[in-house]
Amino acid sequence: MQLAKVIGTLVSTHKNEMLKGKKLLFVQPLDDRLVPFGNEMLAVDGVGAGVGDVVIILNEGGSARLITKAKSPYAPIEVCIAGIVDSIQTDDHYEVLK
Amino acid sequence: MQLAKVIGTLVSTHKNEMLKGKKLLFVQPLDDRLVPFGNEMLAVDGVGAGVGDVVIILNEGGSARLITKAKSPYAPIEVCIAGIVDSIQTDDHYEVLK
Amino acid sequence: MQLAKVIGTLVSTHKNEMLKGKKLLFVQPLDDRLVPFGNEMLAVDGVGAGVGDVVIILNEGGSARLITKAKSPYAPIEVCIAGIVDSIQTDDHYEVLK
Amino acid sequence: MQLAKVIGTLVSTHKNEMLKGKKLLFVQPLDDRLVPFGNEMLAVDGVGAGVGDVVIILNEGGSARLITKAKSPYAPIEVCIAGIVDSIQTDDHYEVLK
Amino acid sequence: MQLAKVIGTLVSTHKNEMLKGKKLLFVQPLDDRLVPFGNEMLAVDGVGAGVGDVVIILNEGGSARLITKAKSPYAPIEVCIAGIVDSIQTDDHYEVLK
Repeated sequence: MQLAKVIGTLVSTHKNEMLKGKKLLFVQPLDDRLVPFGNEMLAVDGVGAGVGDVVIILNEGGSARLITKAKSPYAPIEVCIAGIVDSIQTDDHYEVLK
Repeated sequence: MQLAKVIGTLVSTHKNEMLKGKKLLFVQPLDDRLVPFGNEMLAVDGVGAGVGDVVIILNEGGSARLITKAKSPYAPIEVCIAGIVDSIQTDDHYEVLK
Repeated sequence: MQLAKVIGTLVSTHKNEMLKGKKLLFVQPLDDRLVPFGNEMLAVDGVGAGVGDVVIILNEGGSARLITKAKSPYAPIEVCIAGIVDSIQTDDHYEVLK
Repeated sequence: MQLAKVIGTLVSTHKNEMLKGKKLLFVQPLDDRLVPFGNEMLAVDGVGAGVGDVVIILNEGGSARLITKAKSPYAPIEVCIAGIVDSIQTDDHYEVLK
Repeated sequence: MQLAKVIGTLVSTHKNEMLKGKKLLFVQPLDDRLVPFGNEMLAVDGVGAGVGDVVIILNEGGSARLITKAKSPYAPIEVCIAGIVDSIQTDDHYEVLK
């Protein structure tokens, strides 16, 4: 589970049937100060997130399928967006995002 | 799930029976501006992709088996190609790929 | 499984139902000398840890669900805190944390 | 799934029963031009590979158990060798390995 | 699966019940020449290893649970020690460890 920012969308018409109707978003992992790190991923949206939102991402097939309400327990989903973040609190800073 | 480019093919005659008949492709992960990052992988093709295509890859056994229509739920597949990308849209650029 | 320090908390009101009521914490992996390395993660608390604690984290869905007492075997949890560390002993140093 | 080269062997007499009789090999990941990258791993051999062979490796427990014909679905195997590579073809080079 | 050296131990009294009675060790991955690389992990001991031993580690929940004889198939274990290494043989060097 990581903090991430939604940075873009993707269109794919020729894809596996089970991915049809699912919104795919580019997400960039962030640390607790919202500094980007690591590699971008593609995530299936499970909460109605949009470009610019700071979100919680999950990178586990079992969890991702559940959150995106995949009909089959074996739907081909691996990364998903599980929540939109309102605020972050650490020892020395507090940030309201929404 | 990541964006990737198909960059090559591989021939292996001496391989596990359950991999026979499956097309193995080299894929290079890309960010949303199509800049390569990270390490190449080998992926089983699930959508009829070819060298040069920009694709969606999945790196989870359960999903990969499903997309490549493996007969057994335990087929030895780990990474697969799940879609061919038409276009990418971010805050400040739009790219048509197909 | 890794050693990590709890460095912050996060509020998300718009999230998947199954994550409701679960405390999400930022954790930073540490080596045996408590030097940070690698990337921050978000973890679900399973032992009552707080900011500043040095903890054991698990990064596997099956284990994480168990420790956080998720009602469903398919609850969308991926990383969790499984213990609070008292002391560390290596060849040449000994550190009491609690 | 990755391309890799078999670079060594390992002897362990004091090991878990379920690993007994299994050949453990050091493998080094390679890119499509056979340039090494990333970290070495230990893999269980599933195809009769030897030191110097360029092989296909799988890094998923379910697949690895299947290929190495583990009697139990829960045998403790995580990485395996699934095929020996004959040739590689990319946009601008072609290499015969066997 | 990786080669690793046991470098320390850890005490945690306030931990998940299912981890009670399990020995947790710090392990540092090594390459075939015993040079450290990558990040330290915490592993549950499954073979009676001690500080200084060169060992085989597994990083998969299913395997780890089996080796450490966890009573429940869902015990929260992710990384384990599966064997103690006697010797390593590569193209150009041979090392006896025990």
